Amino acid sequence: MGLKGRDLVSIRDLSREEVVEVLKASRRMLPYSEGSKIGHQLEGKVLTLAFFEPSTRTRLSFETAMARLGGRSVTISDPSASSLRKGETLYDTIRVIGQYGDAVVLRHPNEGAARLAAQASDRPVINAGDGAGQHPTQTLIDLATIEEKFGTLQGLNVVLLGDLKYGRTVHSLARALALFGTSLVLTAPPTLAMPEEVRKDLDSAGAKVQEEPELERAVKNADVLYVTRIQRERFGDEAEFAKVAGSYRVDPALLEPAKERMIVLHPLPRTGEISPSVDASPHAAYFRQAFLGVPVRMGLLSLILTGKAA
Amino acid sequence: MGLKGRDLVSIRDLSREEVVEVLKASRRMLPYSEGSKIGHQLEGKVLTLAFFEPSTRTRLSFETAMARLGGRSVTISDPSASSLRKGETLYDTIRVIGQYGDAVVLRHPNEGAARLAAQASDRPVINAGDGAGQHPTQTLIDLATIEEKFGTLQGLNVVLLGDLKYGRTVHSLARALALFGTSLVLTAPPTLAMPEEVRKDLDSAGAKVQEEPELERAVKNADVLYVTRIQRERFGDEAEFAKVAGSYRVDPALLEPAKERMIVLHPLPRTGEISPSVDASPHAAYFRQAFLGVPVRMGLLSLILTGKAA
Amino acid sequence: MGLKGRDLVSIRDLSREEVVEVLKASRRMLPYSEGSKIGHQLEGKVLTLAFFEPSTRTRLSFETAMARLGGRSVTISDPSASSLRKGETLYDTIRVIGQYGDAVVLRHPNEGAARLAAQASDRPVINAGDGAGQHPTQTLIDLATIEEKFGTLQGLNVVLLGDLKYGRTVHSLARALALFGTSLVLTAPPTLAMPEEVRKDLDSAGAKVQEEPELERAVKNADVLYVTRIQRERFGDEAEFAKVAGSYRVDPALLEPAKERMIVLHPLPRTGEISPSVDASPHAAYFRQAFLGVPVRMGLLSLILTGKAA
Repeated sequence: MGLKGRDLVSIRDLSREEVVEVLKASRRMLPYSEGSKIGHQLEGKVLTLAFFEPSTRTRLSFETAMARLGGRSVTISDPSASSLRKGETLYDTIRVIGQYGDAVVLRHPNEGAARLAAQASDRPVINAGDGAGQHPTQTLIDLATIEEKFGTLQGLNVVLLGDLKYGRTVHSLARALALFGTSLVLTAPPTLAMPEEVRKDLDSAGAKVQEEPELERAVKNADVLYVTRIQRERFGDEAEFAKVAGSYRVDPALLEPAKERMIVLHPLPRTGEISPSVDASPHAAYFRQAFLGVPVRMGLLSLILTGKAA
Repeated sequence: MGLKGRDLVSIRDLSREEVVEVLKASRRMLPYSEGSKIGHQLEGKVLTLAFFEPSTRTRLSFETAMARLGGRSVTISDPSASSLRKGETLYDTIRVIGQYGDAVVLRHPNEGAARLAAQASDRPVINAGDGAGQHPTQTLIDLATIEEKFGTLQGLNVVLLGDLKYGRTVHSLARALALFGTSLVLTAPPTLAMPEEVRKDLDSAGAKVQEEPELERAVKNADVLYVTRIQRERFGDEAEFAKVAGSYRVDPALLEPAKERMIVLHPLPRTGEISPSVDASPHAAYFRQAFLGVPVRMGLLSLILTGKAA
Repeated sequence: MGLKGRDLVSIRDLSREEVVEVLKASRRMLPYSEGSKIGHQLEGKVLTLAFFEPSTRTRLSFETAMARLGGRSVTISDPSASSLRKGETLYDTIRVIGQYGDAVVLRHPNEGAARLAAQASDRPVINAGDGAGQHPTQTLIDLATIEEKFGTLQGLNVVLLGDLKYGRTVHSLARALALFGTSLVLTAPPTLAMPEEVRKDLDSAGAKVQEEPELERAVKNADVLYVTRIQRERFGDEAEFAKVAGSYRVDPALLEPAKERMIVLHPLPRTGEISPSVDASPHAAYFRQAFLGVPVRMGLLSLILTGKAA
């Protein structure tokens, strides 16, 4: 009941109990997301997707989530084709299209755009990524994948590997895991270390955090190896990017000493960070993670649009 | 019954009685457009949207209108991606895709495109704007907003402000209001005066028309202040545009002496013509007007596709 | 039952019996495709359209096919907006989005892309054109149009006119007609003759094939005149294109000596190959052929997604 009509701009908008509620709803959505059951829970509902930056898989998974529950989507996915081109403010655009459907999913290149949109719209706004800002549904998917594997989020040892400076997904994930007392291990090139601000938040949430620059050592004790892409577009300086690009690569040899139950996650798309030869390994869980985008968004949409979890 | 299977290329294709019928159907659609009732009236119907020019809000409101009534849309919104690129004529494109769904909504940069499309298609064609030509559903929305506020279209004093030369929405609106005996006041920069041809049509329709170049004076007696954007893209000459851009701006001070019930309308997007500080005023009706795009298009589609008004 | 869950990459993936089954299913779909019956056969099904190359009419006809049977589509139609831009492989993209819906329709500029996608996806993949490769649903539509007119595919005399070298539609059509013992007449500019490889396949399938460079002579005995567009984009060499562009044109005078029942087909879009003055002729069947894209794709999707033919 708590989530009905609510905005989701940052994962921090959700309490621990609300995160648990979304994960529970997501599990109930599995048969619908697989097509083995036909859903009608969102019949009559219309979701407006406003994507001012391309993000194919996020868009498709929201649209599929609506379709699998009998709802409808209307979509802007060509930013150059919008009224913004005619000089309209984001406020006006969202104020208008926010009235059409029952909720808005916003993807935008600028940090803070989702908060602004939430102010402009009478209907709930779900942030699907705003620049270097937040992407809370990705975090919910990450949590759902870990929970599906281990049955819990507690007592696990999660290694965050890669760009921990610019990578918004790891900031959000770390904050969310801190709610559940998960142990975090940070493995990053020195220039891409987790920012002080995020570290402080984790500390004040009582998170168990340690740094382990040696990837081989980190892998040995990991339950989850969360790999990120180093995103060229987040770097102001091309030289800084060149120094760290390709500084790590997950391959079968690296995973040899890992625990049997250890899983490798990645928000995708990957470029070279995980070798395709890992795909056949039982450790590879990133395609399952991508699939869970559908049931997690189904669970979330169901809670926000109807207040019900199934 | 009268509108079933009909094209809508120009607002002049509709008699006064037919306009009244559409407005009545639109009012009945309100609970469905707000999501408080689930509609099934257009179940099984497919609307083809062929947008050869971007117009995000028009497209979304048509798609939402179909979705809210249980119908489906298939959409072209990337003009460069079309068969036209391979050298196909508009006639061939519409002749083919006009067979797929139950009606076609066309948006096109060239005046006259909608009439041509109506000839090519066996199924009804609805003009959603063809260059400097017609945009009849915008006019129906304008009328619906005025009628919702005042309960009538008669005995009102409507000020048309801004670009009355190139602004197709004001030409269509003026012609439609003439059917209802509304008093029109024209307030425009001298170089953007209403064209003689439109003035003559209004005169022969018996419309009460006067010019009032002083905006302050026009506002005092207005029931409706209809503000338009000066569209750079309609000007051949950049110098002519520069002279008139920014020549008027509606702000709270201007509205001070207005009648209490007076409403400000604007087809949106606005650029600088209406200050955002007007948004909170009880006079501001342009966001409501934008919302009514959905129920008005629902009413129209219902009449054209099924002949029924609810 | 044979087609349920199957990929369709090339028309050669289908046996003669399976082609007959699809054509039969397509005929049963006619009332649904015309909107005279409301279909629910694909309720709860989601089709993912991944168009990495624009093809408006193919995309719209698949989407309409789903809509007319109560199913849903989610669509990528802006290739530049995809994860591929971020350096993702086609394998990864299809592996991920192939999990969302119940089947994938792929359009891609590169030959072989559909076979690769079929390997990446757990769910069925339907090839909607991969570069110079295959486009099997176009062939099924061609066959359906001929069968609708003549009640059979056997004992007919089919003239293939135009670019028989690069034109993938005529290669596939020729191979399919060979299964039914149709007589083929090849009419092409010398530099655009049917490739040896295709000729050999036709010979080993026991097809009756002859060459007739004189178009007038070919028309006299034709039951079907299948006209193709010479596609500039398939030519490496602009000079080679210029030599053959405009080398034939179908007009009413050419059709004068044709059999009364003879039909002219064209996969569209046409540029100058068929004069618009042919449109009104009883021989013109290319717009009907374009329309049949909807029921044929309905029949195929129904068989692949549910195993049922109506």
